[in-house]
Amino acid sequence: MIIEALKRIVGPKGFLEGADISPAFHHDISGERSGFPSLVLRPASTLEVSAILRLCEGAGQPIVPQGGMTGLVSAGTPAPGEIALSLQRMNSIEDIDEAAATMTVQAGCPLQAVQEAADACGLFFPLDIGSRGTCTIGGNLSTNAGGNRVIRYGMARELTLGVEAVLADGTVLDSLNKMRKNNAGFDLKHLFIGTEGTLGVLTRAVLLLHPKPRSQLVAFCALPGFKAAISLLRLLRSELGGRLSAFEALWQNSYRLVIETVPSVRKPLQAEAPVYVLVEATGTHPAADETAFESALASALENGVVDEVVIARSLTEVHDLWAVRDGISEAVLKLNPFLSYDVSMPVGEMDVFAEFAMTRIARDWPNARVGVFGHIGDGNLHIVTNVGEDGATPRAVVDELIYGATRRARGSVSAEHGIGFQKRAWLSYSRTPEEIGLMRKLKASLDPKGILSPGRVLCP
Amino acid sequence: MIIEALKRIVGPKGFLEGADISPAFHHDISGERSGFPSLVLRPASTLEVSAILRLCEGAGQPIVPQGGMTGLVSAGTPAPGEIALSLQRMNSIEDIDEAAATMTVQAGCPLQAVQEAADACGLFFPLDIGSRGTCTIGGNLSTNAGGNRVIRYGMARELTLGVEAVLADGTVLDSLNKMRKNNAGFDLKHLFIGTEGTLGVLTRAVLLLHPKPRSQLVAFCALPGFKAAISLLRLLRSELGGRLSAFEALWQNSYRLVIETVPSVRKPLQAEAPVYVLVEATGTHPAADETAFESALASALENGVVDEVVIARSLTEVHDLWAVRDGISEAVLKLNPFLSYDVSMPVGEMDVFAEFAMTRIARDWPNARVGVFGHIGDGNLHIVTNVGEDGATPRAVVDELIYGATRRARGSVSAEHGIGFQKRAWLSYSRTPEEIGLMRKLKASLDPKGILSPGRVLCP
Repeated sequence: MIIEALKRIVGPKGFLEGADISPAFHHDISGERSGFPSLVLRPASTLEVSAILRLCEGAGQPIVPQGGMTGLVSAGTPAPGEIALSLQRMNSIEDIDEAAATMTVQAGCPLQAVQEAADACGLFFPLDIGSRGTCTIGGNLSTNAGGNRVIRYGMARELTLGVEAVLADGTVLDSLNKMRKNNAGFDLKHLFIGTEGTLGVLTRAVLLLHPKPRSQLVAFCALPGFKAAISLLRLLRSELGGRLSAFEALWQNSYRLVIETVPSVRKPLQAEAPVYVLVEATGTHPAADETAFESALASALENGVVDEVVIARSLTEVHDLWAVRDGISEAVLKLNPFLSYDVSMPVGEMDVFAEFAMTRIARDWPNARVGVFGHIGDGNLHIVTNVGEDGATPRAVVDELIYGATRRARGSVSAEHGIGFQKRAWLSYSRTPEEIGLMRKLKASLDPKGILSPGRVLCP
Repeated sequence: MIIEALKRIVGPKGFLEGADISPAFHHDISGERSGFPSLVLRPASTLEVSAILRLCEGAGQPIVPQGGMTGLVSAGTPAPGEIALSLQRMNSIEDIDEAAATMTVQAGCPLQAVQEAADACGLFFPLDIGSRGTCTIGGNLSTNAGGNRVIRYGMARELTLGVEAVLADGTVLDSLNKMRKNNAGFDLKHLFIGTEGTLGVLTRAVLLLHPKPRSQLVAFCALPGFKAAISLLRLLRSELGGRLSAFEALWQNSYRLVIETVPSVRKPLQAEAPVYVLVEATGTHPAADETAFESALASALENGVVDEVVIARSLTEVHDLWAVRDGISEAVLKLNPFLSYDVSMPVGEMDVFAEFAMTRIARDWPNARVGVFGHIGDGNLHIVTNVGEDGATPRAVVDELIYGATRRARGSVSAEHGIGFQKRAWLSYSRTPEEIGLMRKLKASLDPKGILSPGRVLCP
């Protein structure tokens, strides 16, 4: 019996069943599609993962890897009949090479532990998302996590030098490269980064660390419109070079939503403006960085790119300004039940896209509330909306409106959250039939029996 | 007859045969394994490439894509019976999106044309290698080209947002993503970047542009040893942050080789030192960048990390200092016939590796000349040597010595040049049997008849 054999592989501490399986293993933070796994395996080593997959493949037993379960597209949520494979016990930081600025960690290590270990060595791991204390490196890599600092440091993929992964048949793939330059054959790690557990189970990773910044400059700006935001982005890129570390836009509706509904947030500016932008720069020379930051913003004011600006003068003010941007996640809870979209597109398309979405929602649902905001330096836009006062939101209709407009903008239906179960019906809006065909070919080649996270990303 | 059908696809201007096939199509700049293709096809469009591959696959006709033929591992060199597919007529720059900082180009576009077009828009394409006027973007991506600025901007892979590729069966894969954030399904471009034409033919790419630097600071340093070079690297990373754009080390043997054999190079320093380092920083604020650069080097002098340093005070002096580093390619010609190695390893392993290589070569071939240098900020080391005065260099023996030591350092037998035909026998020194097995699986899945660049990277 495969269940008994699986239990023997991991030993008595390595599994949960029945009532011992807490809700934490049932669904991710989207809360949708809750599922009860028939067994939760908690292996302590790569060899155990390998033995588990070999057995599962032999028996045709579907299995879903789980990290911190902080995803938003149900990729880690067990489907009926699936076994859950939690990597949380494999959470060690195995090595920090300060000279090479690399860290080798097990997949179950929480992101925050990685950040703190880098900091303790005078280095910096730039990946940062709200769930940092709970999410794991394995989950971050599987979904190619983004966050606020992508404009400067890239996505999780760009912060990963090598991986160890276990293939569907139990083969352990040691691809733990530590070099920035390695052109000896195909770079296989990309088969496992951003593929949401469908092609293999990540068990280890070599991460790239960066120098620790010594300055953090933050400003909040009121702008006359979206075109001004693009001008400001170009001006800051040109003036600050690689120091620009965040460029977060809030349309007026998001700004008002935060100011009006989150009591702890202070209104940073007097002006009422169609668009606001939070800007952050980090560098290694506080005085010179401050001069460059202020002079760039001064010229933005002079040129009329910005109508009003406030620059944080203390760490408290830094937190206060970031609280306006971060307050969105609290503010949207007031819209419950709300729909949330995470799309990306070339920055030149964003204005028309956002106007279209806001106008059409206002026309079709006059009482709707909408918030638009995003990491526009990376082409990433978020839309949250409650279109029906009674909660009976016609989700498929709004989805079609937003994703249809995304398709026309040659954009992506998922900028950073991934596809999982929840967005797979819309994948063809961003990817061609030939691309989806090649994804299926990879899946069939690496997981011919379809035991790894079946049904995620690609419809069966 | 397939040859006639192929000629009809491309029309009279689109092929060369017989005596019209110039030596430029016979081999790359390594000059090894020269081969005479039975036909050179020069398609003008992706559709022509698609029709060509469909026919070739149907007939089992092997075909090798060619760019500027500036490779060093014979990946583009025709093997007996192969047809060459030159992308050089597909050389347009199709679009520059200044707001998004992206450029869409055809694969045959020379690197230098891309650099110049970015510059004309006030932007910057950082990839730079010596063959910039001849090499093509398609070739740069196929080999995941590196160069001197990897420490700051990454390899060609990190500068590519999307690609269009034609698969072995003629399928056109439009994966021309323009966004930095796009997690809608698998990121397929990595199947074609760094895979040396074995999995598909690149026909277009979307490149990521950067802000144009406004300052360029260059210094040449004499150091007491390799450990000091690592300390200097850490100090500069910490002090200059993202501005550090080159960190090029020359062991004494390379330095002397240049100074003694290249008449145009001026000796930059008085000191005789075991290791020299050329340092470059670029930024957006010339005055502040200069202050930071000088103060970082002053503290390196104070701490004894550096024994002597000269900082370029003019563009002429910038060129003079770079000429010492760049003079190596001229100097090594004096070693003809020489052997050349391009390996990478964790920076902490380099010292032992270089000492071992130099000591063993000196012991076994007392009259050998050797030069060691490299982009050590990226873990990349080059060794050039002439071990036999009569030119009868026992290549396999030296290869084993160098690649064996690379394997013990858990390094890569190819940092930036790729594998092609020339290094495939050594691939297993850097990659595990499981990794090579997965590469074969990908090859079999994407090119089941083995018509695309057969025999490159993987032994048949």
